[in-house]
Amino acid sequence: MMGRGILLGGIPGVDPGEVVVLGGGVVGAAAARAAAGLGARVTVLDIDLERLRHLADVLPANVTVLHSNPCEIRRKCVAADLVVGAVHRTGARAPAIVPREVLRMMKAGSVVVDVAVDQGGCVETTRPTTHSNPTFIEEGVVHYAVVNMPGAVGRTSTFGLANATLPYVRALADLGWREACRVDPGLASGVNVAAGRVTHPAVARAFGLPLTPVDEALANGDA
Amino acid sequence: MMGRGILLGGIPGVDPGEVVVLGGGVVGAAAARAAAGLGARVTVLDIDLERLRHLADVLPANVTVLHSNPCEIRRKCVAADLVVGAVHRTGARAPAIVPREVLRMMKAGSVVVDVAVDQGGCVETTRPTTHSNPTFIEEGVVHYAVVNMPGAVGRTSTFGLANATLPYVRALADLGWREACRVDPGLASGVNVAAGRVTHPAVARAFGLPLTPVDEALANGDA
Amino acid sequence: MMGRGILLGGIPGVDPGEVVVLGGGVVGAAAARAAAGLGARVTVLDIDLERLRHLADVLPANVTVLHSNPCEIRRKCVAADLVVGAVHRTGARAPAIVPREVLRMMKAGSVVVDVAVDQGGCVETTRPTTHSNPTFIEEGVVHYAVVNMPGAVGRTSTFGLANATLPYVRALADLGWREACRVDPGLASGVNVAAGRVTHPAVARAFGLPLTPVDEALANGDA
Amino acid sequence: MMGRGILLGGIPGVDPGEVVVLGGGVVGAAAARAAAGLGARVTVLDIDLERLRHLADVLPANVTVLHSNPCEIRRKCVAADLVVGAVHRTGARAPAIVPREVLRMMKAGSVVVDVAVDQGGCVETTRPTTHSNPTFIEEGVVHYAVVNMPGAVGRTSTFGLANATLPYVRALADLGWREACRVDPGLASGVNVAAGRVTHPAVARAFGLPLTPVDEALANGDA
Amino acid sequence: MMGRGILLGGIPGVDPGEVVVLGGGVVGAAAARAAAGLGARVTVLDIDLERLRHLADVLPANVTVLHSNPCEIRRKCVAADLVVGAVHRTGARAPAIVPREVLRMMKAGSVVVDVAVDQGGCVETTRPTTHSNPTFIEEGVVHYAVVNMPGAVGRTSTFGLANATLPYVRALADLGWREACRVDPGLASGVNVAAGRVTHPAVARAFGLPLTPVDEALANGDA
Amino acid sequence: MMGRGILLGGIPGVDPGEVVVLGGGVVGAAAARAAAGLGARVTVLDIDLERLRHLADVLPANVTVLHSNPCEIRRKCVAADLVVGAVHRTGARAPAIVPREVLRMMKAGSVVVDVAVDQGGCVETTRPTTHSNPTFIEEGVVHYAVVNMPGAVGRTSTFGLANATLPYVRALADLGWREACRVDPGLASGVNVAAGRVTHPAVARAFGLPLTPVDEALANGDA
Repeated sequence: MMGRGILLGGIPGVDPGEVVVLGGGVVGAAAARAAAGLGARVTVLDIDLERLRHLADVLPANVTVLHSNPCEIRRKCVAADLVVGAVHRTGARAPAIVPREVLRMMKAGSVVVDVAVDQGGCVETTRPTTHSNPTFIEEGVVHYAVVNMPGAVGRTSTFGLANATLPYVRALADLGWREACRVDPGLASGVNVAAGRVTHPAVARAFGLPLTPVDEALANGDA
Repeated sequence: MMGRGILLGGIPGVDPGEVVVLGGGVVGAAAARAAAGLGARVTVLDIDLERLRHLADVLPANVTVLHSNPCEIRRKCVAADLVVGAVHRTGARAPAIVPREVLRMMKAGSVVVDVAVDQGGCVETTRPTTHSNPTFIEEGVVHYAVVNMPGAVGRTSTFGLANATLPYVRALADLGWREACRVDPGLASGVNVAAGRVTHPAVARAFGLPLTPVDEALANGDA
Repeated sequence: MMGRGILLGGIPGVDPGEVVVLGGGVVGAAAARAAAGLGARVTVLDIDLERLRHLADVLPANVTVLHSNPCEIRRKCVAADLVVGAVHRTGARAPAIVPREVLRMMKAGSVVVDVAVDQGGCVETTRPTTHSNPTFIEEGVVHYAVVNMPGAVGRTSTFGLANATLPYVRALADLGWREACRVDPGLASGVNVAAGRVTHPAVARAFGLPLTPVDEALANGDA
Repeated sequence: MMGRGILLGGIPGVDPGEVVVLGGGVVGAAAARAAAGLGARVTVLDIDLERLRHLADVLPANVTVLHSNPCEIRRKCVAADLVVGAVHRTGARAPAIVPREVLRMMKAGSVVVDVAVDQGGCVETTRPTTHSNPTFIEEGVVHYAVVNMPGAVGRTSTFGLANATLPYVRALADLGWREACRVDPGLASGVNVAAGRVTHPAVARAFGLPLTPVDEALANGDA
Repeated sequence: MMGRGILLGGIPGVDPGEVVVLGGGVVGAAAARAAAGLGARVTVLDIDLERLRHLADVLPANVTVLHSNPCEIRRKCVAADLVVGAVHRTGARAPAIVPREVLRMMKAGSVVVDVAVDQGGCVETTRPTTHSNPTFIEEGVVHYAVVNMPGAVGRTSTFGLANATLPYVRALADLGWREACRVDPGLASGVNVAAGRVTHPAVARAFGLPLTPVDEALANGDA
Repeated sequence: MMGRGILLGGIPGVDPGEVVVLGGGVVGAAAARAAAGLGARVTVLDIDLERLRHLADVLPANVTVLHSNPCEIRRKCVAADLVVGAVHRTGARAPAIVPREVLRMMKAGSVVVDVAVDQGGCVETTRPTTHSNPTFIEEGVVHYAVVNMPGAVGRTSTFGLANATLPYVRALADLGWREACRVDPGLASGVNVAAGRVTHPAVARAFGLPLTPVDEALANGDA
């Protein structure tokens, strides 16, 4: 059987597991809270000092927050039973902050869960897996890198997604797309194409097309 | 895919799962603490009022402790996403306190983990499963009833077992079995056969042999 | 006697009460924390996802935060022993998000405390009551909707109000009203009338008078 | 209006109330936990050091446990906003550990809730009150001393009482009273009269009748 | 021996110490959390109501947050066993908010730790001390006012300082100073002199030299 | 300066200290709670499995409880920043469970606080020190082994001692020594000499005198 044979939370008298969470955003904080709730000793690494202070304020006492750098990542990963990759860069590929040589130093049977797999993964050895065949072993470390992890808990995910998107749907329905975008610049920044012109910088760049600022497109009434 | 698609701990904005733990002993309390640590809403049912008071003192705020009776068991199970069977009777078969008709009323895709399976299970529909084929569905409910569940976390279990038994091993090694049993009546009560005579009531009963009280066997020096 | 005969926090062995808090602002969060502190199972509903995440970070484990919508409001209210209405819209009437037909489905003897009563209430059946005659029953539900609830704890309220207003008083005393308003646009936005002209949009609208922007009034030295 | 105008839990910026709980048994611990849950600063006084250590282990951080003596009782009561009398002596009148001269030193409008009223009260000035007329003022202190306080939450109390007594009822029904008493000395100690003879010391003493030990009555088959 | 002979956290049965923290910023919050973690009863005073609400959300239950004013400062200090001065004004001397007459009313042997000593101290009687001779007594109160307190825990301080400054060092190394300052106005605001001209208002004022806005200096390529 | 320059509780971004507590009795549990309250990562080692379960129930989440054995003691001590020796054997010398060779493997500047010093210490290198000269360095480890440590907090200790002994004093005063000892066998077991005869086994052994059982001495009225 794969794995280290460790109950993450331990039992009275026996050491709990060591969990390392890379990235302290929404995903990383939730992972840290869950692992800590089970009883593990948890470390969260992030580069944003203000975020670390906030996490130190609100996460349970068995979570330590550390400033992330390659040295600390290596030091913590080699002692870990479970590493959770939760690094995220808006609109960009996740950086592979755990290189293969760190994987080689990790304990045999330890586990990597790379939640960043949908953005390419933040562990060098990550490759996408599926819900039906979720894991593989590389350098002696069990990798779980299922694409679309939230799909495993479809009901909770669906409600969560609906909660996050419904306000926009409602604004579109109530105001029409143009007025909704005028009222909410955040929504406007998501418009890719309007009135036949490309309004999103990344799309324009990707296709080599001219970019029309979205404000300009909104100002015209010709959509 | 089996299950209800629910993340037990929920996410901000979406309901967590309802977990029901039958039995508030060491196993049940640990299960309740883990589920609560993940963020679920947990109910522990037990018939021992003093134990309930203790659990109310030490378990997290999202655990409710209830006096167990058939009515409450049914009321709670039909609303549950996960039922953990952790009923234990020393040296006896676990009582099947969740009858099949309650299973029929449970939500489709809900899960039963019957930790009591090694003592016959405390859910009527339980039948033993294995680590390689751990679950089956009956009445629409997913059953997990792996014999020797601690085997899944072999390292933690082994240390835990060693911690619990080592004091006896040490006493046997230091004092010899006879003196060790004299000093510790708890150890003596575990002697099955001594000097050719059966000293344990259950063994004597099972084989229809005469019973020699263990004290008497210990008093004689002829082992 | 009115009510459901329930101790909100329950006792070991007996279910606690279900408390639903509508609105997760300062008032709703305080209500949720108090009810959770007593031992109740609490749900807070709000439409602001960022606020829900914050509340999930800082409120006790026996508080669940849910994204508010008419469906969830009804589902939660009909199971509640106590509903606290703490919805607030700055400078506007509170929306009546609990309609009478939900009240009709609620348990007999359950209680509504509509803290929003000073802004018209967020429960359709709310009508203002007084400290000397604080409750009435409608649709079988006990309503508590005392105007000026903080008046019941006059000492705490007075200190709280002083803490919130004293910085403004001090600025007015130190700088004079005009300079204080220049330094602090927040204070300026509260000016209703200056130099004989109406400077507040709502006042101008209410009385059909011309509006002078407060900046303009402050710029002139003729007050 | 009676009282000190204080919200027990305070609000951010304003001091919470000071709550003193006399007696750290089941009632006192529950009162302390509830008051602490609301946010008050709580002190529990008890004379049993082992119990104090347990309470310090399990009660929230805003509860202080103190060894009780007349000096500490006075020191704490005079600074209190709320005093909860939860002293209990099995089968005996509660001692009046808060004398009138301490009441005189208490703050005007402070409150005494004497839960011990059913055993005569543990505050010298206590006299029984009713649910319909629950309070009176003496020495400037509001007294709440309703006889049968649990009656105010009839549903929770009834379940709680049933949980505590049902095991005995079941034993009586399964075994008959005589066998049930033989099996459970605790039950036997509650028998007042058997086979026409008084078997309870307090009853015998109260009526000047001869006492038959309950064991003797149980041994005879003539009931 | 100096001091009041008090274990800050108390022991079960004996009152803990009273700790007063002046200022609820990063330092004050950390001090409050540590003292509360030891078991003391802690009060934090600050003038920022939003900050008080945040602290009330995240600090342990044995911390009370109070709106600061001279009256509350005096009331709390005279009852304190330990006062921590953690008041900070960016770029300015700390205000001496605890005057000598309050010191005179404090309990003999109580302790003041004035963390603000590097900015002049927030207690009137503070004068700088050293790690080798850290305390003095004035008005019967023990003062600890070591300059550079973090030096006592050099390893932790060094890592902390590196974490806070490394992002700037990295930006300077990657981009050069000019570009780094253009990208990050926060970094630019720390430039004192550029291209032979003074670019920092406080430096210009202190030396009576003309001030060149830093933007202007950055715009020119002549550095 | 001695020590490792570590703030036990760490700061957001920097690792906290590792604290190892040897012995989970009253002293060890209090030390663990205090260190955990400051923010350190704490491990308590004890040989009593029931006690470990209790500690796991009541201590903060950043405390791990481990079954003690020489292997775990060494493994934990060599990684520690602070080791607290709190091993106690009633009426006997504390065992030296940390041998010198473990000290040699510990980190330079780490600290041992041997609370067991009054019973000979539980660290091989311990020798008694005083409040005026409290520490020494051996094998590169700072030792704090002050005889009568509670004397450093005389007020709290005195109250604590009085709380623990006052019930006996009161019984002696109310009943006389003979009756008090008859009522309370615990008190009787502390009688060393009665009516000219030695009644305590250890005293008899130490002086080679005949032992009179205390019951016998109490039965006679000739004291």
